[in-house]
Amino acid sequence: MNKIEFWFDFSSPYAYLASVQIEAVAARHARAVRWRPFLLGPAMKATGMQPLTHTPLRGDYARRDWARLARLLDVPFALPDPFPIAALAPGRAFYFVEEVRPDLSVPFARRVFRAYYSEGVDISAPEAVQKIAAELGLDAAAIANALGEERLKQKLRVAGDEALARGVFGSPFFIVDGEPFWGSDRIPMLENWLATGGW
Amino acid sequence: MNKIEFWFDFSSPYAYLASVQIEAVAARHARAVRWRPFLLGPAMKATGMQPLTHTPLRGDYARRDWARLARLLDVPFALPDPFPIAALAPGRAFYFVEEVRPDLSVPFARRVFRAYYSEGVDISAPEAVQKIAAELGLDAAAIANALGEERLKQKLRVAGDEALARGVFGSPFFIVDGEPFWGSDRIPMLENWLATGGW
Repeated sequence: MNKIEFWFDFSSPYAYLASVQIEAVAARHARAVRWRPFLLGPAMKATGMQPLTHTPLRGDYARRDWARLARLLDVPFALPDPFPIAALAPGRAFYFVEEVRPDLSVPFARRVFRAYYSEGVDISAPEAVQKIAAELGLDAAAIANALGEERLKQKLRVAGDEALARGVFGSPFFIVDGEPFWGSDRIPMLENWLATGGW
Repeated sequence: MNKIEFWFDFSSPYAYLASVQIEAVAARHARAVRWRPFLLGPAMKATGMQPLTHTPLRGDYARRDWARLARLLDVPFALPDPFPIAALAPGRAFYFVEEVRPDLSVPFARRVFRAYYSEGVDISAPEAVQKIAAELGLDAAAIANALGEERLKQKLRVAGDEALARGVFGSPFFIVDGEPFWGSDRIPMLENWLATGGW
């Protein structure tokens, strides 16, 4: 069966809140999840959006919404400073980890989210990303090298191009057997789709 | 107990999809619903949003999403033409019906939604609104008169001012005991809030 595609920007609180739910949903329906970090910036340019915290009214709602969703899901959450960030380092590192230790790519992504949203670590710093990788038993020097490689920079850019070409305009954004679901609040609907085969 | 405030723009497909759900949710928790039509335009200006169908990527998603949600809810839906519209006539008429026959204001609103989203009636036309009112047994001439009254125009404007002042930036938008919920996809969460008293 097709994997559930989970497109996300590490800088997105709603992606963090989705990241703690999606594997269990997939497992209930015998699916795997393909985690696809990308940078949301180009999609936001295409759709004329600004970061939520820079947007009147919507920003206030989002701050309240993130906090209450975290309480509902019983996961730690504190809006980090700086926020938002350009999540280049964790995105590139993710794709490197996926190459060298695919079994650790999801634990790495989860650890990055937790560091940013519950420990206030600035995950845009390569050193922070290297430290997280090292804690998982990965070779920090190899990660440091990889973060500077044009090949890996290109890999993250290509992921962003693919996202845009496939209509992925937000984070999180799921694709299930070709069907798009935008937003962490659509996970119950996504699960209904998995359970019923769609409607 | 406080009523559930249901803020909406008659031109919003997501509001139509919410309008067929919210009364049942409220009834399950012994609540009433206060329907509050307003014009979304000023809130969209404040947040820098464009109508969804005018927005790249998001527009394509929305068209697909409206249709599939209607199938899921088993309600008729066809994107009308023209769309979107400035829903002045139905908004003003709603507040007039609420004054003279409060028992008919919700049936009137539902009938307006159905006319627009399943019969393709241009509900921005005062004549269309008068016809719907007459079908409900209301005095079409009285509605026609009221639609031209400055007092009623002002009433709809004041509703929009109140919406903006209270952070209502989208449609549908619910407020339950002071707690805001934006979007038809948040109705299950709103119901959880009603059932549990919040979290």
